[in-house]
Amino acid sequence: MKEKGILTVVSGFSGSGKGTLMKELLARYPDRYALSISATTRMPRQGEADGREYFFVSRDEFEKMIAKGELIEYAKYVENYYGTPRGYVEKMLDEGRDVILEIEIQGALNVKKLFPDTLLLFVTPPNAGELKKRLVGRGTESMEVIESRMNRACEEAQGMECYDYLIINDRLDECVEKMHDIIRGEHLRSSRNREFIEEIRKDLERLKGEE
Amino acid sequence: MKEKGILTVVSGFSGSGKGTLMKELLARYPDRYALSISATTRMPRQGEADGREYFFVSRDEFEKMIAKGELIEYAKYVENYYGTPRGYVEKMLDEGRDVILEIEIQGALNVKKLFPDTLLLFVTPPNAGELKKRLVGRGTESMEVIESRMNRACEEAQGMECYDYLIINDRLDECVEKMHDIIRGEHLRSSRNREFIEEIRKDLERLKGEE
Repeated sequence: MKEKGILTVVSGFSGSGKGTLMKELLARYPDRYALSISATTRMPRQGEADGREYFFVSRDEFEKMIAKGELIEYAKYVENYYGTPRGYVEKMLDEGRDVILEIEIQGALNVKKLFPDTLLLFVTPPNAGELKKRLVGRGTESMEVIESRMNRACEEAQGMECYDYLIINDRLDECVEKMHDIIRGEHLRSSRNREFIEEIRKDLERLKGEE
Repeated sequence: MKEKGILTVVSGFSGSGKGTLMKELLARYPDRYALSISATTRMPRQGEADGREYFFVSRDEFEKMIAKGELIEYAKYVENYYGTPRGYVEKMLDEGRDVILEIEIQGALNVKKLFPDTLLLFVTPPNAGELKKRLVGRGTESMEVIESRMNRACEEAQGMECYDYLIINDRLDECVEKMHDIIRGEHLRSSRNREFIEEIRKDLERLKGEE
């Protein structure tokens, strides 16, 4: 029996380094993980390829995908739609890959509602001071920009306890392994192995009677 | 802040190899783990030392421990009491060690009720056939013994889904690392890091106002 992959949603503070973390995870274990590819109605930028960075679709196509329930979640930013096509995710999960999906909290909770087996990971710097340092950047940002980033961080912190695990991103190298450990460990949850439990019970009863 | 240890209860089929597994885990990571030491009213056997294999106590002392709530769980087998002294476990947890406790399912569920943060692990061979092979042993056992072992296994299988994780013991070496991964991963559960979450929120609010 080929083991099914786990849908893993990664969220975290802007400036938590979650992008780098996921990229590194995929690079180290390319056979285990797949990054979910979003569909979007925005135009491709220089160097972006359809089916690699995004699935580029028209507004009409996107709205048809919504209507047909072909998106796990979607959101509209400014004038453009962004969403997660269900087909690609399910194909990868069926192939036994753990699919990594980067979305913000509201989307994460929606996905969890739709797929209760979803694993929710939240990436955070080791403390608030470190986060502010990263948000302030090289000292070239205006007070307004920093303030708006800090406000955003306060909002992002509101949903932290809805996530299954916190990934404290102090050292990238260790952090990638922590994330990998967590996902591997989750495969052994008894709630994800009901079939195994049923099978061993049935077989024990059968073998008890034999010889 | 010194991180508190996790109380980890290990149960599993007789013949699942859980004893060997735990011994190996302790041997590999002696600073991280501590094995809970049971108190018992039975007499020490040759080579057993008080405070190492068991805390050897009189029946009177044991019953006083029960009365004072000094045992996390206890049971009586034949004429002797066996139980888990709370003091030793809490001392180890406070020192940041993950405490491993080997007990059967009813005890495990009682411990979980008393300490909801308890992690429950169930060790199982990869399938029922393998388990039967181990229970049959070298072919020197009587039909009655095998039958009684198989009946016991069927009972043991009844509570499997109450455990947090299944440890499928196919290869000892990998299995030890799986167990270690799971326990390390559990330390990152957001439910075990409420203080961290509260602190980062409070600090973000404070830093937002500064400069």
